[in-house]
Amino acid sequence: MSEQVKLVALLKRRDGMTREEFGRRWTEQHAPLVLRFPNLKGYRINLALEEYQEIEGELPYDGTAELWWDSLEEMRADYATEIAAEAVADARSFTSELTHIYMTEHVLS
Amino acid sequence: MSEQVKLVALLKRRDGMTREEFGRRWTEQHAPLVLRFPNLKGYRINLALEEYQEIEGELPYDGTAELWWDSLEEMRADYATEIAAEAVADARSFTSELTHIYMTEHVLS
Repeated sequence: MSEQVKLVALLKRRDGMTREEFGRRWTEQHAPLVLRFPNLKGYRINLALEEYQEIEGELPYDGTAELWWDSLEEMRADYATEIAAEAVADARSFTSELTHIYMTEHVLS
Repeated sequence: MSEQVKLVALLKRRDGMTREEFGRRWTEQHAPLVLRFPNLKGYRINLALEEYQEIEGELPYDGTAELWWDSLEEMRADYATEIAAEAVADARSFTSELTHIYMTEHVLS
């Protein structure tokens, strides 16, 4: 998928939310908004597993998302819509930190 | 893949490295070490696209990786090997920051 653009989003939950509340809020209410993006080719959400984190200590993020498009143009077209404005506003409402990084993906196995 | 464990790694390149050098070092030299993990079920590397980052400003990370296993036990078995010790030491040699978060993946589209 060398021509595709992949957005990796790093999210920290809003203060006062449990990690479980955060996961439900994201997958049940926020994800349906993102799935309305007309050009989106894929969407994965990764939620931190509270019980495993002992291995590495304190968590900088409670979840990451992966979204991808066939081109930068298609991604930009989606972000110019009202759908995106609504999705981004919604994301900010349940996070204390939200960082986006634009990537290319290399599948190795 | 609800039973699987997914490791998301966040990497910042070593000072003095260009993003291109970092990408080559990772995909050409480091990835083959990771692919030796006996129980690993999948491995993806995402490299930040320098030209797109204007959209969101300064980058906290230059790349992220996704590795997954069928269970926590299989992941732990891999991390107990010399292969893992070598791979982790290698990762530290070309990064200035390396964070691991253990996740469950939710595929939405």
